[in-house]
Amino acid sequence: MEKSVYLPKGYQAAGVACGIKKNGKRDLALITSDIPAVAAGVFTRNVVKGHSLKWSMEHIQTNPAKAIVINSGNANACVGPAGDADAARFAASTAKLFGCPGEQVLLGSTGVIGYRLPMEKIESGIKEAFGQLSIDGAANAIEAMMTTDTFPKLVSVQVQLSGKTASIFGMAKGSGMIHPNMGTMIGVLLTDAAISKDLLQKALITVTDKSFNRVSVDGDTSVCDKVLLLANGLAGNPEITSEGYDYTAFVNGLESVSVALSKMLAKDGEGATKLVEVRVKQASDSESAHLIANAVCKSPLVKTMIFGQDANCGRILTAVGYSGVDFNPNAVDVWIGDLLCFENGTALRFDEEKALSVLKKDEVLITVDLKAGSAEDTMWTCDFSYDYVKINGSYRT
Amino acid sequence: MEKSVYLPKGYQAAGVACGIKKNGKRDLALITSDIPAVAAGVFTRNVVKGHSLKWSMEHIQTNPAKAIVINSGNANACVGPAGDADAARFAASTAKLFGCPGEQVLLGSTGVIGYRLPMEKIESGIKEAFGQLSIDGAANAIEAMMTTDTFPKLVSVQVQLSGKTASIFGMAKGSGMIHPNMGTMIGVLLTDAAISKDLLQKALITVTDKSFNRVSVDGDTSVCDKVLLLANGLAGNPEITSEGYDYTAFVNGLESVSVALSKMLAKDGEGATKLVEVRVKQASDSESAHLIANAVCKSPLVKTMIFGQDANCGRILTAVGYSGVDFNPNAVDVWIGDLLCFENGTALRFDEEKALSVLKKDEVLITVDLKAGSAEDTMWTCDFSYDYVKINGSYRT
Repeated sequence: MEKSVYLPKGYQAAGVACGIKKNGKRDLALITSDIPAVAAGVFTRNVVKGHSLKWSMEHIQTNPAKAIVINSGNANACVGPAGDADAARFAASTAKLFGCPGEQVLLGSTGVIGYRLPMEKIESGIKEAFGQLSIDGAANAIEAMMTTDTFPKLVSVQVQLSGKTASIFGMAKGSGMIHPNMGTMIGVLLTDAAISKDLLQKALITVTDKSFNRVSVDGDTSVCDKVLLLANGLAGNPEITSEGYDYTAFVNGLESVSVALSKMLAKDGEGATKLVEVRVKQASDSESAHLIANAVCKSPLVKTMIFGQDANCGRILTAVGYSGVDFNPNAVDVWIGDLLCFENGTALRFDEEKALSVLKKDEVLITVDLKAGSAEDTMWTCDFSYDYVKINGSYRT
Repeated sequence: MEKSVYLPKGYQAAGVACGIKKNGKRDLALITSDIPAVAAGVFTRNVVKGHSLKWSMEHIQTNPAKAIVINSGNANACVGPAGDADAARFAASTAKLFGCPGEQVLLGSTGVIGYRLPMEKIESGIKEAFGQLSIDGAANAIEAMMTTDTFPKLVSVQVQLSGKTASIFGMAKGSGMIHPNMGTMIGVLLTDAAISKDLLQKALITVTDKSFNRVSVDGDTSVCDKVLLLANGLAGNPEITSEGYDYTAFVNGLESVSVALSKMLAKDGEGATKLVEVRVKQASDSESAHLIANAVCKSPLVKTMIFGQDANCGRILTAVGYSGVDFNPNAVDVWIGDLLCFENGTALRFDEEKALSVLKKDEVLITVDLKAGSAEDTMWTCDFSYDYVKINGSYRT
């Protein structure tokens, strides 16, 4: 995997500052494909949905995508019918520049909930971004999507599809409700592979369940979370229309990109000092494995323990116990890194120095082995620090 | 409701320091009824269960209770078969002093997980407590159950049952996983009312669902959580054997005691500066009302917002949205105190000064009105402060 910021063939991007963010930073990202691309998307399951997100959810169903335009600093959410009208105008203003139907423009908005979008600023921003579109524009585009992310998250891989080299590029900002006022998890994945719409959507759903849906920062789910995936076919491979070898290669590449971005998102969680990976092994079934990984990842007690570098592993077993899964508590092993803390449900006396050396690392692996079956699950989260409280206790634009 | 610490007729209590807590504070509580009492209990749903808790769960089924003995400082959990043997010895040593079967002794242990109980200290503590049993001993008993609680939680009410006055007394420590190393929610409820075992258990389950099960501090559920309820009949009322007027009066009194204790538990949550009450109104059904109240109570973003006194009410609506309940987002009203923030799903421009005055109070009420039906739910939680992280990041005995 190379961490280059090159876009796949036929894509251009730009990111400008149009005045939505009060600090003058970039706040409008524009991405386009030379030819309308096959489009797939996964969207928040929150019953409350942002207006820009609803626009994208609706029009991605039956339209290819010529462009994606995303603003930060304002979520365009919960402002009533005016928010839907603003979304339509947002898309139409963009479409006009490209000479395409508004339905071929996918939208994203991330930021504070409950305020109207400043449409005049946005419209002048779209024009400026249109003029700056470039094959080297990804770095500016991700910057314009970022809010309080502390580093940009971009990655790309190349895959071989029937002898042709295709690129899969991804960029993402925020994570869950990391920065609820100014944030949302938004992922933009771009590929020059040729693949049918049905399989593109299937690949995205499959991969999202192993990556973006496996990141937990604080368990809150934003009203604007989304991942968009465009495929413009310019790599020249024979279109993937069935689940054969090429499809598998494509899915594997997409998973590499998505998992890499997901780990970056967890690591950059609010106030995070560490990346935490939770692996559940030998569960009786996939659902159980996931419920357990999720309970451990969401436990404020586990997360504060890791921040404090205190190997209080009873908290991990406690979270496993209340996950909602029925299991034999006398068969569970719990590991922190390569240190076995609980064996068959019984606490071991371990070396505290050793525990500290494991917990001091930037990345901490927690393993829960249920010895009940063959199902597994892996999730990523971060520790829970003073800064999380600081950022969320007083942050509003 | 009088906040006296008088025990109901026929009960005595004591609390001593036997050396489990390193700081020399009281750590062993003993409570007894002059005659074996009808006993009811509700216990943690965590699959992992402490050894002392398992002893109580088993023997409460078929035995009256002569005594309750509870230690703090050590959870007697996850130590393997030795923990079960320690529990049996704990009960037998207590029973010997009372001349009753060990099965008539109910146990509780709260504290660090994964360490054997210091049985010799405990046995000498039991003897000392036995010698100090007194009708005025409740204050010492609750002190011995407390860990990092910042104030003792005791309350009693009187109810009229067919012309006789009966008392219902309650004391509680901790809340959920408030202090996971040194804590667990333990409630001890004592009454001199005469009531059949079946109805006592039914009353406890009914009331617990409206009180102790409606407190959320951090969403974690301890392996030792329990509420015990004894009824010794010494008030002289005709035994309650059916769900008539007396049963209703008893349940109402028990609910008053339990709700008062629950609010104290929430208010004394780790690092808490405020009590937060979440009321869900006009939900389509009870399950939906509870899921929504629970999602709002558990949201770290809502809890940090209240700590920060920042009326960022989009976070409340967001939590409602991901609660798992299907509802019409365009019908939801959200209130903080008497300030309407969202009306029919749309953000209102409210007076920030007014919002601050509401959030500055020690007790903050959040109301979510779904306008979908007639179901309601009320839960209690606390805000989420720097001190929560501090306490949980570095706390181990």
